[in-house]
Amino acid sequence: MRDQHNGAVQTPRRSAGLLPHVLYRARAGGVRLTVQTPEAVRWAGDAVEYVDQRSLPHETIVRRAVSPEELEDAIRTLAVRGAPCIGVFGAYGVALLRSQITDEATFRAAVARVREARPTAVNLRWAIERVLSANDMLAEAQAIHAEQRETDRRIAEAAAELIGRDATIYTHCHTGSLATAGGGTALGAIFFAARAGKRPRVFVGETRPLLQGARLTYYELAQEGVDATLVVDSAAAISMQRKEIDLVIVGADRIARNGDTANKIGTYGLAILAAHHRIPFYVAAPRSTFDFDLATGRDIPIEERSADEVGGFGETRTALPCADAYNPAFDVTPNHLITAFVTEYGVLRPPYGESVPDLQLRPNMSALLSSG
Amino acid sequence: MRDQHNGAVQTPRRSAGLLPHVLYRARAGGVRLTVQTPEAVRWAGDAVEYVDQRSLPHETIVRRAVSPEELEDAIRTLAVRGAPCIGVFGAYGVALLRSQITDEATFRAAVARVREARPTAVNLRWAIERVLSANDMLAEAQAIHAEQRETDRRIAEAAAELIGRDATIYTHCHTGSLATAGGGTALGAIFFAARAGKRPRVFVGETRPLLQGARLTYYELAQEGVDATLVVDSAAAISMQRKEIDLVIVGADRIARNGDTANKIGTYGLAILAAHHRIPFYVAAPRSTFDFDLATGRDIPIEERSADEVGGFGETRTALPCADAYNPAFDVTPNHLITAFVTEYGVLRPPYGESVPDLQLRPNMSALLSSG
Repeated sequence: MRDQHNGAVQTPRRSAGLLPHVLYRARAGGVRLTVQTPEAVRWAGDAVEYVDQRSLPHETIVRRAVSPEELEDAIRTLAVRGAPCIGVFGAYGVALLRSQITDEATFRAAVARVREARPTAVNLRWAIERVLSANDMLAEAQAIHAEQRETDRRIAEAAAELIGRDATIYTHCHTGSLATAGGGTALGAIFFAARAGKRPRVFVGETRPLLQGARLTYYELAQEGVDATLVVDSAAAISMQRKEIDLVIVGADRIARNGDTANKIGTYGLAILAAHHRIPFYVAAPRSTFDFDLATGRDIPIEERSADEVGGFGETRTALPCADAYNPAFDVTPNHLITAFVTEYGVLRPPYGESVPDLQLRPNMSALLSSG
Repeated sequence: MRDQHNGAVQTPRRSAGLLPHVLYRARAGGVRLTVQTPEAVRWAGDAVEYVDQRSLPHETIVRRAVSPEELEDAIRTLAVRGAPCIGVFGAYGVALLRSQITDEATFRAAVARVREARPTAVNLRWAIERVLSANDMLAEAQAIHAEQRETDRRIAEAAAELIGRDATIYTHCHTGSLATAGGGTALGAIFFAARAGKRPRVFVGETRPLLQGARLTYYELAQEGVDATLVVDSAAAISMQRKEIDLVIVGADRIARNGDTANKIGTYGLAILAAHHRIPFYVAAPRSTFDFDLATGRDIPIEERSADEVGGFGETRTALPCADAYNPAFDVTPNHLITAFVTEYGVLRPPYGESVPDLQLRPNMSALLSSG
């Protein structure tokens, strides 16, 4: 872990010098490590600490945000990413600003700065509004974080029945603790299984164009000591054919009332390949990902991103600079290709026309936690 | 085109300054260009000229190989690649050496140097042996090249019945003129259709890990003025779902007697996706790609390549340097997922147990050409 000008947090259990060796042992076959992925977001009393996801997997840097500028920058530059993670970060950020700023106008301007750091982040706005309307803002931010952890924990627990003792699992994109500031969804389920003494083996699709699988999922699995194997996305089919994949588990961005599921580009193809090979295909997601007002996946708009993402990676250009590209960020997997959903309220199976509306009627996690 | 110390060939119709503009027009919708991809390999009397494929698509450089060292280097460094292309290059190379070297021992040493430049290249050895055993070595090299062109032309002609006037086509990897030193196989069929006045629209899978689709296929399509769209490999499924793909056409590395087909990693997955969307899946390949002694695809060994190819992207490392990866270079598509094969002897349809053995009985292209 590197010292930063804005104050690095030195976690005593980690050492940059040891990491390659430790990771080598990890990939040799699921040795439990003494290092762990640092918490994505942490309240530090006088700062909000966060893992800078831009430098992963090559450097694990924990930074401190203290000023409104630092809070805004962390979100705007994607150092903090993943919808739930941004929400938790923003919630703590507002509580921090409240503890620093007494002038009301200055406080409101600072909050606006954080809230507008990423205009499309629905979770960020939701979390900030919830904190602002509370009497004890820090307690409310901590409640949001605790609910996130509990949601992820329950998802992982619910998934336990689906993951056998020596399961070989295929996953895609990144659904780990760095994305949710909790334990993660699909990846959280794998970690839960490993911690329970199972020996999962995980194939990770690199997830072009932005390579979240190669950069973040593989990193978290290696940190946790889970046996992980990276593949290019187009090696999914041969992996299912020759590597005895027992199940596929992925996350979701938005799930319609009938179970049609929008998720990272490539998910739809994976679901078809899984069906072809008669491999169960699971989607792990909290209730907040279900859009109960949306009848089917047909109505989900598909964001198309820049051709530049397809024509290269980072500083490396591969295609002609002027190359035309089709770069959908998501695809929609029809409900009939999904074996089950794993939520914090349990496993949902078909017919989704019944099980998904049922989900809507469950009590909120905040109610469950405060009554527990 | 850049001047090279070893003598650049300036093709008057090309200009590096014009290319981006011309290519922009190309991607705007299939405008026929006045520039063309230079010939992969060309006999120049006092040299063998070749396109340096390492600098594509960013620079189109035609180099001249004159000495044994230059011939060897061109093959060894992958400046010349693609099995048939290497064969043609080696054939001309031996003819060139014969014209330069009178001393028999020196000639044999020089030939050995070229032949061993890439030990696994079966085509290279075959072509060199054929040239060495001929009385007129240059005439024999030219015959090999002419047969290659004719084979590719006949494949393209045979594919015409499968490609409609406004077909939207998905292809994978690289099967163009740079790979064969002829017109190309799957890509040659698309060019043939375009030259015949059809208006194909082509989706090109980038083909991780080595990105032959992004680098070479997109380049050749743009040069030819064919409407091309680049996608990441995992966007194949949504492309088939939403972009009205009419057919998939790919090449092959090795085809068993029952039609099982080894080709670049990702082909098997594409064939499953095509079947799911009821899209015809064609394999374009010359008879020389069929291994009539191989009963099924089960017996085809799958080459596994370095994890480094998966963990990075050109100079950019993405995964942890020590990341474990499964990196099969090929996969095997079972015969029942292949709608038809397109060969220089016509279109082969199921049952392949009959049509493939039939193919074996056809006369050689050299016999066809010399009798014509």
